[in-house]
Amino acid sequence: MASKPSIPKGTRDFSPTEVAKRQYIIQIIKSNFEKFGFQPIETPSFENSETLMGKYGEEGDRLIFKILNSGDYLSKANSEFLEAKDSTKLTASISEKALRYDLTVPFARYVVQHQSEIEFPFKRYQIQPVWRADRPQKGRFREFFQCDADVVGSKSLWQEVELVQLYDTVFTHLGLNGVTIKINNRKILSGIAEVIGASDKLIDFTVALDKLDKIGEDGVKKEMLEKGIAEEAIQKVQPLFNFTGTISEKIEKLAQLLASSAEGMKGVDELRFICDKVSELELKTAILDLDVTLARGLNYYTGAIFEVAAPKTVAMGSIGGGGRYDDLTGIFGLKNMSGVGISFGLDRIYLVLDELQLFPETVTASSKALFVNYGDNEAFYAMKAIQKLRAANIKVELYPDNVKVGKQFQYADKRNIPFAVLVGDQEMKSNTYALKNLVSGEQTEVDFEGLQNALLS
Amino acid sequence: MASKPSIPKGTRDFSPTEVAKRQYIIQIIKSNFEKFGFQPIETPSFENSETLMGKYGEEGDRLIFKILNSGDYLSKANSEFLEAKDSTKLTASISEKALRYDLTVPFARYVVQHQSEIEFPFKRYQIQPVWRADRPQKGRFREFFQCDADVVGSKSLWQEVELVQLYDTVFTHLGLNGVTIKINNRKILSGIAEVIGASDKLIDFTVALDKLDKIGEDGVKKEMLEKGIAEEAIQKVQPLFNFTGTISEKIEKLAQLLASSAEGMKGVDELRFICDKVSELELKTAILDLDVTLARGLNYYTGAIFEVAAPKTVAMGSIGGGGRYDDLTGIFGLKNMSGVGISFGLDRIYLVLDELQLFPETVTASSKALFVNYGDNEAFYAMKAIQKLRAANIKVELYPDNVKVGKQFQYADKRNIPFAVLVGDQEMKSNTYALKNLVSGEQTEVDFEGLQNALLS
Repeated sequence: MASKPSIPKGTRDFSPTEVAKRQYIIQIIKSNFEKFGFQPIETPSFENSETLMGKYGEEGDRLIFKILNSGDYLSKANSEFLEAKDSTKLTASISEKALRYDLTVPFARYVVQHQSEIEFPFKRYQIQPVWRADRPQKGRFREFFQCDADVVGSKSLWQEVELVQLYDTVFTHLGLNGVTIKINNRKILSGIAEVIGASDKLIDFTVALDKLDKIGEDGVKKEMLEKGIAEEAIQKVQPLFNFTGTISEKIEKLAQLLASSAEGMKGVDELRFICDKVSELELKTAILDLDVTLARGLNYYTGAIFEVAAPKTVAMGSIGGGGRYDDLTGIFGLKNMSGVGISFGLDRIYLVLDELQLFPETVTASSKALFVNYGDNEAFYAMKAIQKLRAANIKVELYPDNVKVGKQFQYADKRNIPFAVLVGDQEMKSNTYALKNLVSGEQTEVDFEGLQNALLS
Repeated sequence: MASKPSIPKGTRDFSPTEVAKRQYIIQIIKSNFEKFGFQPIETPSFENSETLMGKYGEEGDRLIFKILNSGDYLSKANSEFLEAKDSTKLTASISEKALRYDLTVPFARYVVQHQSEIEFPFKRYQIQPVWRADRPQKGRFREFFQCDADVVGSKSLWQEVELVQLYDTVFTHLGLNGVTIKINNRKILSGIAEVIGASDKLIDFTVALDKLDKIGEDGVKKEMLEKGIAEEAIQKVQPLFNFTGTISEKIEKLAQLLASSAEGMKGVDELRFICDKVSELELKTAILDLDVTLARGLNYYTGAIFEVAAPKTVAMGSIGGGGRYDDLTGIFGLKNMSGVGISFGLDRIYLVLDELQLFPETVTASSKALFVNYGDNEAFYAMKAIQKLRAANIKVELYPDNVKVGKQFQYADKRNIPFAVLVGDQEMKSNTYALKNLVSGEQTEVDFEGLQNALLS
């Protein structure tokens, strides 16, 4: 192959610096998941197609990457579909496996398959790549990581309280202060639908209401009317057009508005419990806010709905989301398993930290010192020191070849290695090392202890 | 879907305990890779098919998982192959992407694609899954992780010295003492082939010689004769049938045997340099041994060849391997890039550590304490302590529901949580906690400081 190699569109190579930064984020998410009692599981990259197909809607089915059967796959292909050249229908007979589309369906499959080994409530986290045959665009990839924490087997609202705290803790540890954790509740949305007397118009309603900041009250109302929501209905929920105040005040406004809806009032109670506890226990740096237009995955969630917005100084969509779903495992035959979970958007968090320069300098640090190679005798002397330094957990390396010193310094420079260690005849005789600070240019003569101390600091 | 869900054959779900153990191994490998100056990269799970196909031989091509093109893939399918139902030939026209088969070819592709951004010598490590449509069997999976460290862009033999040290360091950190790092050199094998006058019989020769322990000298010679190796040739390498002694003694025997082969003597010199340096710098727990039958990936390696064997107390194949290859990136058009690398066999290392019970108990530890849930007031009091304990990096959790205490204790027991914390009216009044050691059954009354100290220890 003579042409320059490339990778499939929508996929990425990660350089050492990028991997280090990604690992930094993942490590903070992981350690906090564990501190909150979540345990890791991992599932295979591909599942049987029947496990995935039909779980994400028609669009989802199309976006799932299918794996071609091995061997003489055409021998089992459906002849009728083959002759008709019907790609969609043929697929099932030439492909039995498909790449994971998200972590939730494999998790549900895992819970059902391993139910006898699991202690419920089961708090699991999972950080693995998923694949979608989506059209690639800025910030949207065909391979990307999801970072999910879910509890299954308990309806306790303390879980929601803890998940809000978990978001707060992770973003605080990442130094990303001032994120907004938006909360809503599916039952409140149902209550609103009841009050406006048009549950089929609920999405149109929330989409329009969400534009309040942009197009103003008149604009929103105009759009609602155009979508077929009655004037009378709009009047009933007039308070939502001036929905300000503290979160408690907002909840009390909702309590009045939804008084006639049993379902809506249940949502108000749930919201009140969660918000009260979160507020009394206090968040470190995040802000909890009620957003009645929040409706992500409406058909999926049954209780709390979460979404995290980056600080307003950065233009970025949501950097996390989640909620409660009352029937996670029903699709695989295990009924009445309530679950609640949240997810972190790794790629977007990366972009936000990068833009705000929040990655600590130490994250991308390569080796602490490069031992210059002056020949095999000197290299051997250097290797004795290198061995001891590595045993003391200090990252050091020997330039492998005895080439011009300038080239070796250039290598250290490009790799951002802060120190060079030089050993020649003189150092070998006196059992010392010439330590050169590559930033200041300063050079000192040290014994091994001095070397180790300088590189440890 | 009513039937119990399952996963594709050859793949695995990993439970929390298994993930923790795997992460323990990976973390030790990773931290030592970094201590030795290797930097991480990651490549996409799938590559363009042309990047992978033809790089692993015909058998390899068959074992590569191909991804079906999205959308109406049949519209671009080759009609001729479609009508002939020729699966092998049709594949290229309905599949453009394929899952990574190993980490070496993607690494070579990465180096060529990013050559202008890379400082050479480039020391990279990569720990990612690979996929092979192999027949699954004990210890062989269709999805498994590879852990590779390679240096590209330097012919220095110090790299080989360091890679032997790296093996020694990782296995020492894993507590797996007494592994044997077998070393050989492709040039020595070439030298032997020259001496026996039959380079096409080299594999037959090494395979037969490898059976010396099992079938004895006569058996081996019989097999060699059957394979068409001349009696005279076998006599020339008679010393290999009594190839004992220290590694230095073995090297000197080889030096005599291969004196007539320039290539062979070059191999002897390389081997001598590596073994001398390793021996003078000393290994911690591993044993370096010369094995002239070691020939893995013969067509691939050009210099040193490595393989690591688990301690003899465990019946297990190789748990690591590697070597030098003089033309890693030539397949993608970048010539003269010498590389040398090693790989760790994660799955087998796991099995060895498990069998020898070398996983530290702390590896699988879940939460340190479970706070028993007696109702919302008590839970709120508990949450205040939980929050502070988590801030001190202690893993604790609240049982989410106010159910029978027995059930909560059972949960703690099954999860191997060592402590339960009980808070009732009395504790809330006196601002204390009842701390129950679930192993000894002992229960004490402590204040928050006492609680934190008990859980920290």
